[in-house]
Amino acid sequence: MVEAFRNYLTAKASFTDAELAQLEAAAIPRKLKRHQFLVRSGEVCHYIAFVVCGSLRLYRTDEHAEEHILRFAIENWWITDAESFRTGLPAVGSIDALEDTQVLLWSKESWDRVKQEVLTFNALENQLAGRNLDAQVNRLYATISHTAEERYHAFVAAFPDFYRRMPLHLIASYLGVSRETLSRIRKHTGLY
Amino acid sequence: MVEAFRNYLTAKASFTDAELAQLEAAAIPRKLKRHQFLVRSGEVCHYIAFVVCGSLRLYRTDEHAEEHILRFAIENWWITDAESFRTGLPAVGSIDALEDTQVLLWSKESWDRVKQEVLTFNALENQLAGRNLDAQVNRLYATISHTAEERYHAFVAAFPDFYRRMPLHLIASYLGVSRETLSRIRKHTGLY
Repeated sequence: MVEAFRNYLTAKASFTDAELAQLEAAAIPRKLKRHQFLVRSGEVCHYIAFVVCGSLRLYRTDEHAEEHILRFAIENWWITDAESFRTGLPAVGSIDALEDTQVLLWSKESWDRVKQEVLTFNALENQLAGRNLDAQVNRLYATISHTAEERYHAFVAAFPDFYRRMPLHLIASYLGVSRETLSRIRKHTGLY
Repeated sequence: MVEAFRNYLTAKASFTDAELAQLEAAAIPRKLKRHQFLVRSGEVCHYIAFVVCGSLRLYRTDEHAEEHILRFAIENWWITDAESFRTGLPAVGSIDALEDTQVLLWSKESWDRVKQEVLTFNALENQLAGRNLDAQVNRLYATISHTAEERYHAFVAAFPDFYRRMPLHLIASYLGVSRETLSRIRKHTGLY
């Protein structure tokens, strides 16, 4: 499992063997069955996860029991409930596996320690955090300014891997549109 | 001007006099007239701004020339086009003053340097960046899951200062609803 993580890291920055070993030693490998939870709403999200294979989603459930997806993660992506992981307070969101999935997990304590001790990793993590914020701002902008159809096309263009793998109702939930609206858009544009 | 910034800092964490002096020495004070730009879309956003007094907005203009507000900032808030400031690429958004405004500015170089040299400030900045990400995620969730009326009430509750100071059309632009919809909501709920 750590092989995939090692390939990911060495493609992103120059790490010494000792640094790679240190990062890997702090990681906990875990397998999740499809529909199994990494964290449930109301529990503390103790881990940040790197996806080795499979896929997960972070979502929140509104008062009408409707699910809204905030993030997908497939191979080489990271996922956590950031607020709960950072503060140690119960998570508002839930994270579950969409397929049989393998992840590497770091506890908050391990995560803070490796960032402090492995400066190259700290720099990489800062860069990823910056890009993550940019992506959130861009998604918010798209949500308040674009039509459902424009958002769907942007999603397909930006995340072709997600588009191919995720069922329609999950993409609708991510885009904040009904399944019926998304079906109509897909029929209309001939994109299947 | 630095007095306000010093009060802000000392309320947030314990800084030595030397650290405060170092942070302040790196800052550039600037006055902006109402409607004056800190950065225009297409230019590089060279600075991050701390608001001493007055207010600003970060917004993007869509292809129908409609403006969408991504952030307001009043006294003791920070504002920048984060992606442009981080990458040095041209900004997608614009930042302008909503009132006569005073800010303190740090260039990317100064900002990185003070974060490296003043560890208490680095820790504070990490905490603010984490909270900023949480706020973006929460706003995105509200946008895809809540009605316009629910979003308006959440905005009034979370930012009473903004609500009192910002004209209706700017709040509508922030919430991603038309001015007419927001007028209707305000009449309906009797909140003026």
